[in-house]
Amino acid sequence: MAWSELYEKHAQTLSHAIAAVRERTFFAHWAEVPSGKVYGESANEEGRRRFEAFVGKPFRELLQEHNGLWVGQEVSPYGFPLEITYPQLPVLTALERAQRAQKQWQRLNVRQRAAVLIEALEQAAADFFTLAYATMHTTGQGFVMAFQASGPHAFDRALETIATGVLAIECFAQEALWRKPLGKAELVVQKRFLTVPKGIGAVIGCSTFPLWNALPGVFANLITGNACLWKPHPRVILPVALFVARLQQTFDTLGLDPHVVVLLPCTVENPLTWEVVEHPAVRIVDYTGSPAFGAELERRLGAKVLFTEKAGVNSVLVHSVADLGAVVDNLAFSLCLYSGQMCTTPQNIFIPEEGVETPEGLLTPLAFAERLVAAIDALVHNPKAGPPTLGAIQNEHTLQRVREAENLGLPILRASTPFVHPEFPQARTATPLVLEARWEEHRALYGREWFGPITFLIRTPTLQQALAEVVHLVQTAGALVTSVYTTDEITREHVVQAITEAGAPVAVNFTGPIWVNQSAAYSDFHGAGVNPAGNASFVDLAYVAARFGVVHVRQLL
Amino acid sequence: MAWSELYEKHAQTLSHAIAAVRERTFFAHWAEVPSGKVYGESANEEGRRRFEAFVGKPFRELLQEHNGLWVGQEVSPYGFPLEITYPQLPVLTALERAQRAQKQWQRLNVRQRAAVLIEALEQAAADFFTLAYATMHTTGQGFVMAFQASGPHAFDRALETIATGVLAIECFAQEALWRKPLGKAELVVQKRFLTVPKGIGAVIGCSTFPLWNALPGVFANLITGNACLWKPHPRVILPVALFVARLQQTFDTLGLDPHVVVLLPCTVENPLTWEVVEHPAVRIVDYTGSPAFGAELERRLGAKVLFTEKAGVNSVLVHSVADLGAVVDNLAFSLCLYSGQMCTTPQNIFIPEEGVETPEGLLTPLAFAERLVAAIDALVHNPKAGPPTLGAIQNEHTLQRVREAENLGLPILRASTPFVHPEFPQARTATPLVLEARWEEHRALYGREWFGPITFLIRTPTLQQALAEVVHLVQTAGALVTSVYTTDEITREHVVQAITEAGAPVAVNFTGPIWVNQSAAYSDFHGAGVNPAGNASFVDLAYVAARFGVVHVRQLL
Repeated sequence: MAWSELYEKHAQTLSHAIAAVRERTFFAHWAEVPSGKVYGESANEEGRRRFEAFVGKPFRELLQEHNGLWVGQEVSPYGFPLEITYPQLPVLTALERAQRAQKQWQRLNVRQRAAVLIEALEQAAADFFTLAYATMHTTGQGFVMAFQASGPHAFDRALETIATGVLAIECFAQEALWRKPLGKAELVVQKRFLTVPKGIGAVIGCSTFPLWNALPGVFANLITGNACLWKPHPRVILPVALFVARLQQTFDTLGLDPHVVVLLPCTVENPLTWEVVEHPAVRIVDYTGSPAFGAELERRLGAKVLFTEKAGVNSVLVHSVADLGAVVDNLAFSLCLYSGQMCTTPQNIFIPEEGVETPEGLLTPLAFAERLVAAIDALVHNPKAGPPTLGAIQNEHTLQRVREAENLGLPILRASTPFVHPEFPQARTATPLVLEARWEEHRALYGREWFGPITFLIRTPTLQQALAEVVHLVQTAGALVTSVYTTDEITREHVVQAITEAGAPVAVNFTGPIWVNQSAAYSDFHGAGVNPAGNASFVDLAYVAARFGVVHVRQLL
Repeated sequence: MAWSELYEKHAQTLSHAIAAVRERTFFAHWAEVPSGKVYGESANEEGRRRFEAFVGKPFRELLQEHNGLWVGQEVSPYGFPLEITYPQLPVLTALERAQRAQKQWQRLNVRQRAAVLIEALEQAAADFFTLAYATMHTTGQGFVMAFQASGPHAFDRALETIATGVLAIECFAQEALWRKPLGKAELVVQKRFLTVPKGIGAVIGCSTFPLWNALPGVFANLITGNACLWKPHPRVILPVALFVARLQQTFDTLGLDPHVVVLLPCTVENPLTWEVVEHPAVRIVDYTGSPAFGAELERRLGAKVLFTEKAGVNSVLVHSVADLGAVVDNLAFSLCLYSGQMCTTPQNIFIPEEGVETPEGLLTPLAFAERLVAAIDALVHNPKAGPPTLGAIQNEHTLQRVREAENLGLPILRASTPFVHPEFPQARTATPLVLEARWEEHRALYGREWFGPITFLIRTPTLQQALAEVVHLVQTAGALVTSVYTTDEITREHVVQAITEAGAPVAVNFTGPIWVNQSAAYSDFHGAGVNPAGNASFVDLAYVAARFGVVHVRQLL
């Protein structure tokens, strides 16, 4: 099925769901009555037979990898053992497969993901009666409750979650032309905004409402681009396995990796929960269950709403430039501004050994460095612009850090010196230090934050290796900004995709009166909250939405 | 100034800011150039003189309590000590005052809060030049940067945060008439949705951008109804103190408690951070600073996105009823449904000793209990409706819990017995146990969750004491639902306000085919995320918004 067709097929369902979510009015996409008139006179009987056919056998409907071992311990509260076994998968393998599937899944836009997920729900709805019997004989619920709670009611909660995800992601424009008046001129910046999932997500199921309580978490993960590990209760697996199988089959039919959702069957003796939730790759946890265990999770994983804006290692990648003077001037200003004491100051400048393409011909990394140092000198020694741009050093530790950097043994491309501030001769000052570092060999040095006027110029064999290093730094040390100079469109798109998917924003070809250090209110999200530089983003929906809850009052009229 | 006047005054500013936030286009409410043409030819000179007047003196502009001790250790990086001291306040006193102020603040609606906050920003903007000198001589920034970063740029980030908060809160309707078709009839429920802050919030400031980095957290707290403690860096207090003073003066002028924002000056030796962020009443933390300390905060306070839906103690408050039979039938069904194995099953039924008003006259608590037990018996012994409503007991522990409850020594109003399921004679079953408990004396028993078919009927001297106990249980044990029966409008509003402000939803006068156990997709938020029963809400914006970040690509055209 083509995307447009799939999208068309479910457009009205999605639009009804979004309207209902906003207005909080009555809506139900699936009929809640387990009636033959709605679902067909034979549906109940067929569902019961399909359930009975699973009893006593290995469950073979999943499309996920397995290691050949089978587990299963379910017993119906209505008095008989189910004797169904499920294929096991080591947590590490499951994570690795989910991460690979997420790469593909997160590249779909939110409307495409919504269409896929609604299609999967519609396919899974064919199992309403089977899910009802599976739920009844694992949880002990009566039949009608089991039908509703694992069928229409759970599915409507899933659709509600899809709609809310679309609403949240579409709350902000995905593209903008940002025009800032500058006297009679205008600064025009084209902006794109990409949503990046925080996942992998993990959903820990409960023993009484295996679908109703889990689907919001599962679908909140999925609609926002996260892959998801789903660990049901060891005694209540069948309804979850049936549902996951339908999901995986829909993904597979649409040409998507079915490991976007992975089932982790477990046993009472080895419930897997801590192994799953404490793995560093798991960033989102949904849990339904006892207050005692939930409090323990909160204690270990954090119960407070905490937003951090720390700092990272901001990189610049220089490939090719249309106007060399404009580029080094812009970079020099970024490095001098407030003597490098901004969380958005670039620290590492990566230049491929093959050289920087310029209208004047190829420039070696050291020749580029010479031009950059000259631009820094020009600004530093400009008596009018220099001192107010550099300002003073806020504290003594930053000066000590400059001394420490000088003594690393790296070649010094530009030495840092104090300068006499014309207004305040006692001011604590320092001009930028520029060091030369070697790719990989000096990673332990340039791979961590050097807060202050300290810059590393790093020669890398190729552009591809420089890009891989920037991505590595974003993922390990975090970054609030990255900057790229290239005149080649294919290179630009390649670089932008790699860095944004790693979770850092990108500034492309900044020259003139716009600097990577600065972010614009109302437009730029400052910090993305998806790399180690911090979990806060000024100002996205989560930044405000996580600070309040909605309590409702229902009054029967 | 009347609310409507204040609202009118800032309506256009707010609407421009909201449009810019959605479209991510250029907008600036305050001019970024520190020019005499914009701000008046004498503004710079006046600002400088105002700054100089603070040097060497105690800072007396704040409108907050203090304990008589003064601290201050600021030294200008431009080479001279500021010798300003600030009034100290013990953290516990600050929290207590902020909590009191929050009570009043959270009752304003989001547009009222927005109007107050924009008014405060406009008032504080009169200090742009003073803030610039204060920032320059604490951080070492150059003058233009100090003006912009602690003036227009920071203030625009604050206005952006206000706009995003309004957007997030207004994403969902605040009232709805929910009409569910029931064959030819209709079920009509009037709903109200109240946003409840999670705070107190704490903002921990940094030494280089004391306003720019802090204002988003401060205003995200404020616009969502949270009061806020603001602990600046011990060496960079003056710009924060000046700003907080303006905020407090605006609150005071408008008749609001100025402790909505409290400044906590500290010293290098006693930086207060852990004392503030680890206090249980502080639920939201904003931090800007070093990666090492930020990681330590994340480790101690939790770095993962964790959503929990645990369980709580759900209460029912019975004051007066219009139709006694309909009420006890509704309650009986709620208690029997899936044998009480729902996180939304009521556990505690509070009845004032003065009795329940009914059309048949006053009913004593025990007479009410008799009617309720009769309704339970009628449902349990109904061969058609009983077994499918009760279902089976999911696990053995629940049965043991029923045994344990029976042996507490409390009077048994209704004994739990197994029943023979007509289809599954081996099913594990149990009918509701109803115990009589005494208010306060038995709080250790009814104050915790008894998952399963276990109900406490609690006689309280007065309605007011019953309400206080319900509020206490919501705050200490959490609740997913509460239920109230009253025919009196004033009582209803009083009860609704007390319980919703404690963070639990309320169902009013439910009879007929709607039960407090069930929540409707697209309309009811299941779990509010603001009481100990869990931090997740199915499905609010935070539930999806916290799972992704937005990464932007800026390309200069």
